[in-house]
Amino acid sequence: MDFSSDTSAPAHPSVIEALARVNTGMEGSYGNDSVTARVRTLIAQTFETDDFDMWMCASGTASNALALSLLCPPTGAILCHAEAHIERDERGAPEFFTGGGKLVSLSGDAARIDEQALRDALASIDRSFVHETPPHVLSLTNLTESGTAYPAEQIKHYAALAHEADLTVHLDGARFGNALASTGATPAQMSWQAGVDVLTFGLTKTGAIGCEIILLFGKSRAKFAELQARAKRSGHMPPKMRFLAAQAEAMLRDGLWLTLAQTANTQATRLANALCAQPNVALRYPVDGNEVFISLPDPFADKLQKAGAKFYPWPGNCYRFVCAWSTTDAEMDALVEAVAG
Amino acid sequence: MDFSSDTSAPAHPSVIEALARVNTGMEGSYGNDSVTARVRTLIAQTFETDDFDMWMCASGTASNALALSLLCPPTGAILCHAEAHIERDERGAPEFFTGGGKLVSLSGDAARIDEQALRDALASIDRSFVHETPPHVLSLTNLTESGTAYPAEQIKHYAALAHEADLTVHLDGARFGNALASTGATPAQMSWQAGVDVLTFGLTKTGAIGCEIILLFGKSRAKFAELQARAKRSGHMPPKMRFLAAQAEAMLRDGLWLTLAQTANTQATRLANALCAQPNVALRYPVDGNEVFISLPDPFADKLQKAGAKFYPWPGNCYRFVCAWSTTDAEMDALVEAVAG
Amino acid sequence: MDFSSDTSAPAHPSVIEALARVNTGMEGSYGNDSVTARVRTLIAQTFETDDFDMWMCASGTASNALALSLLCPPTGAILCHAEAHIERDERGAPEFFTGGGKLVSLSGDAARIDEQALRDALASIDRSFVHETPPHVLSLTNLTESGTAYPAEQIKHYAALAHEADLTVHLDGARFGNALASTGATPAQMSWQAGVDVLTFGLTKTGAIGCEIILLFGKSRAKFAELQARAKRSGHMPPKMRFLAAQAEAMLRDGLWLTLAQTANTQATRLANALCAQPNVALRYPVDGNEVFISLPDPFADKLQKAGAKFYPWPGNCYRFVCAWSTTDAEMDALVEAVAG
Amino acid sequence: MDFSSDTSAPAHPSVIEALARVNTGMEGSYGNDSVTARVRTLIAQTFETDDFDMWMCASGTASNALALSLLCPPTGAILCHAEAHIERDERGAPEFFTGGGKLVSLSGDAARIDEQALRDALASIDRSFVHETPPHVLSLTNLTESGTAYPAEQIKHYAALAHEADLTVHLDGARFGNALASTGATPAQMSWQAGVDVLTFGLTKTGAIGCEIILLFGKSRAKFAELQARAKRSGHMPPKMRFLAAQAEAMLRDGLWLTLAQTANTQATRLANALCAQPNVALRYPVDGNEVFISLPDPFADKLQKAGAKFYPWPGNCYRFVCAWSTTDAEMDALVEAVAG
Repeated sequence: MDFSSDTSAPAHPSVIEALARVNTGMEGSYGNDSVTARVRTLIAQTFETDDFDMWMCASGTASNALALSLLCPPTGAILCHAEAHIERDERGAPEFFTGGGKLVSLSGDAARIDEQALRDALASIDRSFVHETPPHVLSLTNLTESGTAYPAEQIKHYAALAHEADLTVHLDGARFGNALASTGATPAQMSWQAGVDVLTFGLTKTGAIGCEIILLFGKSRAKFAELQARAKRSGHMPPKMRFLAAQAEAMLRDGLWLTLAQTANTQATRLANALCAQPNVALRYPVDGNEVFISLPDPFADKLQKAGAKFYPWPGNCYRFVCAWSTTDAEMDALVEAVAG
Repeated sequence: MDFSSDTSAPAHPSVIEALARVNTGMEGSYGNDSVTARVRTLIAQTFETDDFDMWMCASGTASNALALSLLCPPTGAILCHAEAHIERDERGAPEFFTGGGKLVSLSGDAARIDEQALRDALASIDRSFVHETPPHVLSLTNLTESGTAYPAEQIKHYAALAHEADLTVHLDGARFGNALASTGATPAQMSWQAGVDVLTFGLTKTGAIGCEIILLFGKSRAKFAELQARAKRSGHMPPKMRFLAAQAEAMLRDGLWLTLAQTANTQATRLANALCAQPNVALRYPVDGNEVFISLPDPFADKLQKAGAKFYPWPGNCYRFVCAWSTTDAEMDALVEAVAG
Repeated sequence: MDFSSDTSAPAHPSVIEALARVNTGMEGSYGNDSVTARVRTLIAQTFETDDFDMWMCASGTASNALALSLLCPPTGAILCHAEAHIERDERGAPEFFTGGGKLVSLSGDAARIDEQALRDALASIDRSFVHETPPHVLSLTNLTESGTAYPAEQIKHYAALAHEADLTVHLDGARFGNALASTGATPAQMSWQAGVDVLTFGLTKTGAIGCEIILLFGKSRAKFAELQARAKRSGHMPPKMRFLAAQAEAMLRDGLWLTLAQTANTQATRLANALCAQPNVALRYPVDGNEVFISLPDPFADKLQKAGAKFYPWPGNCYRFVCAWSTTDAEMDALVEAVAG
Repeated sequence: MDFSSDTSAPAHPSVIEALARVNTGMEGSYGNDSVTARVRTLIAQTFETDDFDMWMCASGTASNALALSLLCPPTGAILCHAEAHIERDERGAPEFFTGGGKLVSLSGDAARIDEQALRDALASIDRSFVHETPPHVLSLTNLTESGTAYPAEQIKHYAALAHEADLTVHLDGARFGNALASTGATPAQMSWQAGVDVLTFGLTKTGAIGCEIILLFGKSRAKFAELQARAKRSGHMPPKMRFLAAQAEAMLRDGLWLTLAQTANTQATRLANALCAQPNVALRYPVDGNEVFISLPDPFADKLQKAGAKFYPWPGNCYRFVCAWSTTDAEMDALVEAVAG
């Protein structure tokens, strides 16, 4: 009954098996290997396009920061939600990688940017006013930090507003699969078809060891050489890239990543339902993925913890429960029992 | 007969097995896992000390740059050999991580810093002269970029000179095991006992997938919290740290890393001997590890390549052959045959 | 009738005369001149202490950013008001000089930080949580960006709160003289006696050409060598420093700076009174210095502008009028006439 | 008899007078003033072109670093002479402003880059090799750090080589006037006509208080908005810009700057001749401007210093004497007398 975090989960066995499978003989270093080439093909299939460049990275923080450093100059700013991971949980990585760029926080319920807040921010940009730092990028997150999802149409709408104002669009997809699973969108619909210029496509929380893929779509591909240079210089160009690629291959083959994301989502819904059946329990945010933010009476929370359930109190006067691909029915049954007990 | 690079080699099977073994159940994120705790114990045994802090990192470039960023402020400089990896092959990573620190190149044969060059550089430091960038760190590399080794006594001697001048000492040990195997020094003798403040202890080239360990000894431990902050912000704090730790554990247990380094060294010596038996062939540098830099007549080089041997021409009018833990006797026999054929 | 900005005002004639006076013969470069030595004495008298180090700088933005870069590491954050100049009007200078530090905005009426907002921010600091960027500095501004002043007691109170939480305190005193003139505090009371660690003491808006003085008090003096290195490397160590010093000397001698600040304040009060006597006119913020933020009916604003008054519309649905040391009684009379006309 | 540095000299009286003259009434801030507009016209006349953008800056270090930050990305390098001011005397300013770019030192006699060294450096660039930092800029200095001058034809030749290799060309002209005066080239011939993309046009050492002008020619003008943003964020956008402009106007009007540079050069030649007439005295480098680097027997140097001459020992086993616009005939006579005495 460990609902502490999907980053505490193990990797899916297929991922480990893939590592063993590619561990034979010599392979080109730094991405010049046969496994990476196969991943490119899988990405093309998954995203239904060939108009992309990709870079694999073990770290979600670095993937976001590298992506943003391509889109935002040191003298520019990035619009994001006040609760965004890049703003709150990456120890200034975007500022570091951009060389001193600035994050500008936007408000909005449930970690989703409010449309009016976005419109106001875009309308107030005056690129001729040298004293203020003008936004160059809109960074969205899906799933958001509150476990909610933007539908693909909203991403598309926001991206269009951003593009009109000459901003580019980054999507932090650390839990991209969970957002797809709950909204029913395809990877293409939630990314390049929605106007996303650069996607951080996360597989770590979904079931890999550590594997995120930075995807440059369309015009942003012009930045690919710069991405490689920046990856190298930040220590995100592993010589034995085949082992990152093997993780990606295992996850992408036959849509394993989506299956795993769906599993985590399903367990989260069961969990939310089980808890909400109790008195004085209320969801803090809608459950659109594998995370449940929920208000519990303190004695009830205590009881669950004493029964062995692991979960954390969260800012906003609630608790966070996270399900992972590895959350079992047995765990869910145990929780249901603890709830009832 | 692939002697292109030890970074093109696979991982040792024990490393992959270790990944599988730790892939069970939930574990604390970001280094708060049981495997990382065991690695700490192994490091203490290997280096015969408890007076250290450690951080595991998948990247050698990042490990060096993180280490240097602790020791060198943005307004300071780093003394290193003109051929050092940090100067030539890391795309400005030290400058990036230090926030604009400066590398100052020193000369010396076979990629080893010349003592007089070091003494001159240290003697010319004038910390009261604000216009020049004063060195704060001496960064040594062992094995060097030319495949040569500093004996532990020389490291100790240089470190003493550096400390007298108020510099700290960093050792880039991407091929630390190879240097130990050839010089006969113990890990302790070649690091903290020699006055090394921070060691980048590389296991990737030795046989891991991607695992380097930054070791802070003695006084430099005061920088550990800063190291963690910088690791986080540069994307080198993997949530599922247990998989880095598993690599380290597999390599350190029973001294596997030293055994593998010795194997690579032995094959390199065999290779050098086989080539040097031919006319007009001369070692460019002494072979102190797993790398052979050698002058070959062009037709001879062609013949070897046509026979299937893979190796690269190298600056300095020579060729580089690298042996790895995985270089087999069969490969060596094939090379010997190609040489003779 | 130009109330556009105190940065559009000329310098006081004494400043120009001082430049001419020091322009004789050779002088030591980079601050090693006799004029700079005399300024140090004047500062000691003005601030009633010898426990300080000082650096003169032509730029207010650079002075703030240099000061903050001493107090906030690249991995740290700076608490400031959401309207602070460092947050809104310096094009990311603090982020640049700190190497990617982060500004954290606090709320509060009239550009003064709300005590509860400050307490909340301080209480939420968890230095052991590596993922978030912890504040290292509290940066206050006096006069604030809304023309209001903190009394010295409030600075002292906030500084004490900050120190308790292990933060240092920076005061942006671009209009320090105006704040002193309106609150009646002495320079000492509003700076080191209030717990300010580093003061950016501005003389440019008060009547110099371009002269700000970074003052390190008490413990922060340990950073003086670093300040010089950072000043040099950012191009803020002028070889002919005597001309910066001459400005400071002219302003400090006989308290000219305070006289000029008082003049500007007095004119602003007259201006506010004249405008407020009209119907449907209301001060947006209290007038604690030389700036008037005021709501005017549009036709009234038009009338004034047509009569030749120069002033700007300002965010927050108001207009800003700024008086300078050079605002004359004749200008005030003309404005009063225009108001009445 | 103070030959310590041209940065220790006073400003020309015309410069001070100009400050007084522009010190009337309100003026637009940040360069939007009438004096700046007039300077633009003077620059156009001086450089015989309208195809430029300009930015005035009080600091030579900042002017160089700002210029370089436009031309060199954080992932790139700058080719310069090993003795260049940007490499040796700016405390890492180029690294700071570029966000971690790298300086690559080239050799050459008398601080002039050797053509073969330049050709070798350009030939070795491999932009597809991500691990190395590729040069993006060639930075030349005229006068060089050894007081020698490149003729305009050599600048042109080097610039052509650089452009062929896709580098841009920066010229550090801290003593531009001295180089023009000794070579007879026009400002145009030594800058845009020679292929210089960005010139740091120094007036401080020539006789201003602190005034350098960054000139973007031709295609580099596309970077002007970025230059302004970077100037703002580094504290090099003075609100009262008219006072920088007044210095420039005074210096440019009627070619005062060239007259002053010629004076300094003439005195340096006299000084060199007087010294060289003595036994065992030898010029270390040709005297192409206002600086004399010369080997003197120690007793002779002592004698001069005892007689009141001020000059410094210099690396390379010699002494440096610098003449300024303000070096008088009386001083020269006194020196001649001291030499003879």
